[in-house]
Amino acid sequence: MNASHPSVHPVEAPPLTDAANNVPRLRMKDMQGMPGTLGGLALRFCQFAFAVASLCIMATTSDFPSVTAFWFQLWGLELLCIFCVSYLVAAVGLQSLWSLTLAIVDIYALSVRRCLRNSRVVSLFTIGDGITSTLTFAAACASAGITVLIDNDLGNCAQNYCTRFETATAMAFISWFTVSPSFLLNFWSLASR
Amino acid sequence: MNASHPSVHPVEAPPLTDAANNVPRLRMKDMQGMPGTLGGLALRFCQFAFAVASLCIMATTSDFPSVTAFWFQLWGLELLCIFCVSYLVAAVGLQSLWSLTLAIVDIYALSVRRCLRNSRVVSLFTIGDGITSTLTFAAACASAGITVLIDNDLGNCAQNYCTRFETATAMAFISWFTVSPSFLLNFWSLASR
Repeated sequence: MNASHPSVHPVEAPPLTDAANNVPRLRMKDMQGMPGTLGGLALRFCQFAFAVASLCIMATTSDFPSVTAFWFQLWGLELLCIFCVSYLVAAVGLQSLWSLTLAIVDIYALSVRRCLRNSRVVSLFTIGDGITSTLTFAAACASAGITVLIDNDLGNCAQNYCTRFETATAMAFISWFTVSPSFLLNFWSLASR
Repeated sequence: MNASHPSVHPVEAPPLTDAANNVPRLRMKDMQGMPGTLGGLALRFCQFAFAVASLCIMATTSDFPSVTAFWFQLWGLELLCIFCVSYLVAAVGLQSLWSLTLAIVDIYALSVRRCLRNSRVVSLFTIGDGITSTLTFAAACASAGITVLIDNDLGNCAQNYCTRFETATAMAFISWFTVSPSFLLNFWSLASR
């Protein structure tokens, strides 16, 4: 059927008007930052790097090896904030795993010059990006709220745990900033398909 | 060139495949939840209602009229958390104003049966929804982190301030849950245009 159709109508009116409607539409077939492009790979590496940096800052407490927790001082007493640490570590760990996986997928797609434009693959990436970015942002905001409460309203932090926690929070925020473009570009390419 | 091409190659791959690609595309011209629909108006009212509920819970402290702040107890001392209150109130206030404005726009569009499909209008709505939803979510997460820190890790809250703050945080979360569909639907309609 497909082979006989053009021979009967060589001018092919309906597809032409349909194609004319498509001219001003934004297609963004090779927009940098989408999966399978060099920009997308760079975004993934940034996400992974900052998430791992946040994770490492929380994990490598050389002078406090038994439990990686956040201590702060209040009227001379040192307090432990288990929740702050565990949620941030969990969210940032998930983010780093997800970004590493997608970076590997991007490297594979670039090396075999294959275009990642399958609808199911892009929707999977979009959902994953949405979930991980929401979790990372929530963890970073909760940590920032706790840091501000402890640092400004309550009193001073214990010597270097507070700075470490603040740095890890900032890294998580930067990681979220680099996940957001991936999510929005994936969602855009899913919608404009 | 286009007219002479099919006579040489009667199979005519490009226009047909282009038209075939357009068939399964989701257009969602009248999808409920987009601006100018009844579903969109309902979403806006939910956002506004929950944001105003959160604001009212923070503002109407009948037994503490001078400053609407969040008190918690630590070893018998009552502490004030100015930051927690001010950021949540600011974010939720902005959210309620934005949702009220868009609800009025939706009511106008529904009453004159006008379709809000202008590209600039939709992109303005999308950017506004993105900013307000991010701010509301950040405020809710920061408040939730502080509440968990105070309630679980530090000690008990002062009698009813803590419950009130937790309720306001929950309302802010629900408001964010209803802003997200608006943002995603606006972004989708912007991309699929």
